[in-house]
Amino acid sequence: MPERDLQYLAELAAQLRVDSVRAAAAAASGHPTSSMSAADLMAVLFACHLRYDFDRPGHPANDHLIFSKGHASPLLYALYKAAGAIDDDELLTFRRRGSRLEGHPTPRLPWVDVATGSLGQGLPIGVGVAMAGRLERLPYRVWVLCGDGELAEGSIWEAAEHAGSEGLANLTAIVDINRLGQRGPTRHGWDIGAYARRFGAFGWHTIEIDGHDPGQIDFALADAANTRRRPTVILAKTRKGEGVLEAENREGAHGKALKDPDKAVEELGGIRDVRVAVHPPETDAAPFRFGDDGLALPAYPVGEQAATRDAYGAALAALGAARGDVVALDGEVADSTRAEAFAKEFPERFFEMYIAEQQLVAAAVGLQVRGWKPYAATFAAFLTRAHDFIRMAGVSGASIRLVGSHAGVEIGQDGPSQMGLEDLAMLRAVHGSTVLYPCDANQTAALLAEMADLEGVSYLRTTRGPTPVIYQPGERFPVGGSRVLRHSAGDRATIVAAGVTVHEALAAAGSLRADGIPVGVIDLYSIKPVDTAALTEAATTTGNLITVEDHRIEGGLGDAVTDAVSELGPRVIKLAVRDLPGSATSREQLADARIDRHAIADAVKRLL
Amino acid sequence: MPERDLQYLAELAAQLRVDSVRAAAAAASGHPTSSMSAADLMAVLFACHLRYDFDRPGHPANDHLIFSKGHASPLLYALYKAAGAIDDDELLTFRRRGSRLEGHPTPRLPWVDVATGSLGQGLPIGVGVAMAGRLERLPYRVWVLCGDGELAEGSIWEAAEHAGSEGLANLTAIVDINRLGQRGPTRHGWDIGAYARRFGAFGWHTIEIDGHDPGQIDFALADAANTRRRPTVILAKTRKGEGVLEAENREGAHGKALKDPDKAVEELGGIRDVRVAVHPPETDAAPFRFGDDGLALPAYPVGEQAATRDAYGAALAALGAARGDVVALDGEVADSTRAEAFAKEFPERFFEMYIAEQQLVAAAVGLQVRGWKPYAATFAAFLTRAHDFIRMAGVSGASIRLVGSHAGVEIGQDGPSQMGLEDLAMLRAVHGSTVLYPCDANQTAALLAEMADLEGVSYLRTTRGPTPVIYQPGERFPVGGSRVLRHSAGDRATIVAAGVTVHEALAAAGSLRADGIPVGVIDLYSIKPVDTAALTEAATTTGNLITVEDHRIEGGLGDAVTDAVSELGPRVIKLAVRDLPGSATSREQLADARIDRHAIADAVKRLL
Repeated sequence: MPERDLQYLAELAAQLRVDSVRAAAAAASGHPTSSMSAADLMAVLFACHLRYDFDRPGHPANDHLIFSKGHASPLLYALYKAAGAIDDDELLTFRRRGSRLEGHPTPRLPWVDVATGSLGQGLPIGVGVAMAGRLERLPYRVWVLCGDGELAEGSIWEAAEHAGSEGLANLTAIVDINRLGQRGPTRHGWDIGAYARRFGAFGWHTIEIDGHDPGQIDFALADAANTRRRPTVILAKTRKGEGVLEAENREGAHGKALKDPDKAVEELGGIRDVRVAVHPPETDAAPFRFGDDGLALPAYPVGEQAATRDAYGAALAALGAARGDVVALDGEVADSTRAEAFAKEFPERFFEMYIAEQQLVAAAVGLQVRGWKPYAATFAAFLTRAHDFIRMAGVSGASIRLVGSHAGVEIGQDGPSQMGLEDLAMLRAVHGSTVLYPCDANQTAALLAEMADLEGVSYLRTTRGPTPVIYQPGERFPVGGSRVLRHSAGDRATIVAAGVTVHEALAAAGSLRADGIPVGVIDLYSIKPVDTAALTEAATTTGNLITVEDHRIEGGLGDAVTDAVSELGPRVIKLAVRDLPGSATSREQLADARIDRHAIADAVKRLL
Repeated sequence: MPERDLQYLAELAAQLRVDSVRAAAAAASGHPTSSMSAADLMAVLFACHLRYDFDRPGHPANDHLIFSKGHASPLLYALYKAAGAIDDDELLTFRRRGSRLEGHPTPRLPWVDVATGSLGQGLPIGVGVAMAGRLERLPYRVWVLCGDGELAEGSIWEAAEHAGSEGLANLTAIVDINRLGQRGPTRHGWDIGAYARRFGAFGWHTIEIDGHDPGQIDFALADAANTRRRPTVILAKTRKGEGVLEAENREGAHGKALKDPDKAVEELGGIRDVRVAVHPPETDAAPFRFGDDGLALPAYPVGEQAATRDAYGAALAALGAARGDVVALDGEVADSTRAEAFAKEFPERFFEMYIAEQQLVAAAVGLQVRGWKPYAATFAAFLTRAHDFIRMAGVSGASIRLVGSHAGVEIGQDGPSQMGLEDLAMLRAVHGSTVLYPCDANQTAALLAEMADLEGVSYLRTTRGPTPVIYQPGERFPVGGSRVLRHSAGDRATIVAAGVTVHEALAAAGSLRADGIPVGVIDLYSIKPVDTAALTEAATTTGNLITVEDHRIEGGLGDAVTDAVSELGPRVIKLAVRDLPGSATSREQLADARIDRHAIADAVKRLL
């Protein structure tokens, strides 16, 4: 590399450090030292290797840069300034109310694909973006800046396994090994070989460099771009706080503005106005997309028995035929979730993620960055494994579709480890989420199709065993709606149910009617958003609600109902799972949990 | 190994297969083929290497055997039968209602340490048990039977990293590499070297064997027991369904009883009555315990400002002095959670788990197996990373104490990725959990001390910034209680708050009183169990409740309150976080989320 270029890169890196210090100083908080260690790495990337059109963040061939170490946000924003995307005034709004420049990056900025800040997420999401690139046959590269501390997260090794085994050569992890975590030294310090052995064992091309040497960085980035059939990890030895005596390679300097920012700026050579001309992508090739066709959802005759998980598989296959943008992922249980039906029809658009639920969800988030419509399925219970990824998908505003099978005690003999009993509570609490819980096969198919165009995190909960088909094929079930299944002017109470308990509620209503007690029944298939109007109507007419759900008492359907009517103050009796189930048949489980038809009828009688 | 012994081991293994087939046939479900692949491994372990007194499951020097592949429960129960711990009649109750022999093992059986069945958990928990063994200076060994499919879980690699780096030589993973997962082949099939490279890179001693050769198994187990300074992984190539033509090494034979169990039993040589005499431990050495002393909790003068997270650190250090059984763990944020105060005082009892929250919680679960009282802390937001481990800890009935700092929007500038806004929903829905949320430093200290003797999963939520001290040092706060902070006969409504919002509620009550509107204020520090009596009293006297919490609207304090009073039907207005916060100061955040004093006062006025 010519001396002139080296000087320029040094100047650019110095400016990135200066601006990181200045932004944190303006905010009186933030992570300047974690930014300074990676400044040289990012300077060379932006000047020499990144292909990105800042005027067209949606350009299909743009590279993707993900700050997995999201706390290095001052560096990212300093880069945006150097690239001319933001100005110095905006840089200094860092962390202020209303500013786009949040403490950790979010997609409020058009150049940010996903929110980061929960460590160990950027790399698995980058894997998903790299999967998208292969699917749509575009030559973009995915660059992920990782910290060394976050390599302790298991999700990093799920990503390492998937990318290594799939040979995602369009993915490069750049690890800023500054040896210092938040509290103190990382486990491996500057033993870069420890990381190289690990990534190497997982099938990655590994490059070990001095992360402050522009020549070595340039060589490594070029090597990464030219490596075939394997992802590359650049293991860069760096110094946290590089360039400022007060902070350089010192413990106790994490996550705070420098004590003397003016002196630091001076040490770094003062404020500059270096610009970096990031190369736009060299291709205008359109992304490959699969074809569309008419939607022919499966139809189940009323009165037959069918499992909603079976309907999920069949409907997903039908949706896949209708929409070329639909992709499916599964956590090595596609024979149980029934995603297998899609996998057989569309092997190119099906991703076996094996038993790695964090990577399962992260891949979905990565795929949606490029406009794909991912449906990711596993047992509802095991989605808890990916809770933090789902939470962050909510922060990202990512449009992903999750499907949890084997909901509730209904699964029977397998016992509590396999029962999804906390999933509604988890998914309801995610920002901007939609939570759906169908009770029959036709309703499942309709809701599944509707999910394709929902924004944010949406969730469909399915049931293991067969349930009676009660709705006609082709009926519509809008998100946020409900269905009144039983209603009469003399109703003494209204039972609110969803999924498997709808059928228990109908049976209970039948037996109560025979006993001279008319009750209404609402199928609350949309748990969030919830049909406040219908619940208000029921609450004001009968004054008594009974909720019944195959889920723990906390955070599920019952809480959704009480929330909706809390300002009205009806009496609400909540039936839900309160104890620890063991193994038993499905029917025994419903009875033991006191959520079956008999328990419902008893509750109504007790209420009245 | 003498021929006579080999014959005995082959007979024992055949019986384990036969009994696995019979148990699954009796249940018409279960995982016989996943049991059959590991039968030789476990036969040799039980006959030659395990040190366990089945009459004294609590013997301190007993080895620990964890079936990380919990679905191989038929094999585990067949082993118990061969060891004389259960009889054949009980074996055939497998998966029946009321039977201790559940679909996946749970501690309802006295020889089972922890519930398994969610894959990838047994090994990280085994790491915790091995940590306990080192701490209490006992020579027991921890044997963990893993499946090959579950090695895709990131949590396995968190465990590999911790055990490898810490050199936990008392831990042995035995991996049953039968090459077939649930849906089809695993990623690496019989490429045992792929696993050896990975574990080797993480610092483990690796042994590759034929998992059906008793001689090789015996050698490997002895090698593992004799290996110093490193954990050992035995990578055993096996065949799923070994010994029965219908199932052996065939896809589609996962998780179901064999089609023709009688023929299978015949193929395996028929029913036997082979017994295995498991060697009891050879030592009666008592476990090492640290000394106890008087409890002197920190005291904060009323009226001062102190962060509850600071009180957590100080109180934990005080508790550590008082109780030698208290241990602490942290996810590389001990300077933020303030667990550092304990770490400085008691370095031997503090475990830095780095940024690996699944292993953080799993280690706590493992430590409590041996009677230690673990407190595990990280940011509340990042506990979501360990949701599935917390869920399973509830199934295990494990007594662990979790502490989540940086709750809510109160944290201010760091933004949504760092805000615990879903933690109450997550923890409330865990079976048998306790959820505590103190508002001042003295209350924090008192609750922290009380947690030491709680059973099950308990959770303490702390706040980043300082809050006013309102309680006297030494006041008691029983779990399940609450405190009425403002009350008068003329109260028009009652505000129910916890943590940071208590202070907002008090301020609102003050301004409302000045406006001639008297309202009550309840500090609901115990979110679960909740003080139904106090809430009922408030609901029946004022008829109007306002809940306010620094948490999402779903699943938190508001839902706990509406649940408690749902059968009474008061009007409840819930104030909580509904939108996506950005960066801002703490006070701006509370205002923007409409949970500050002004929002509370507005809500009361709107209600009345």
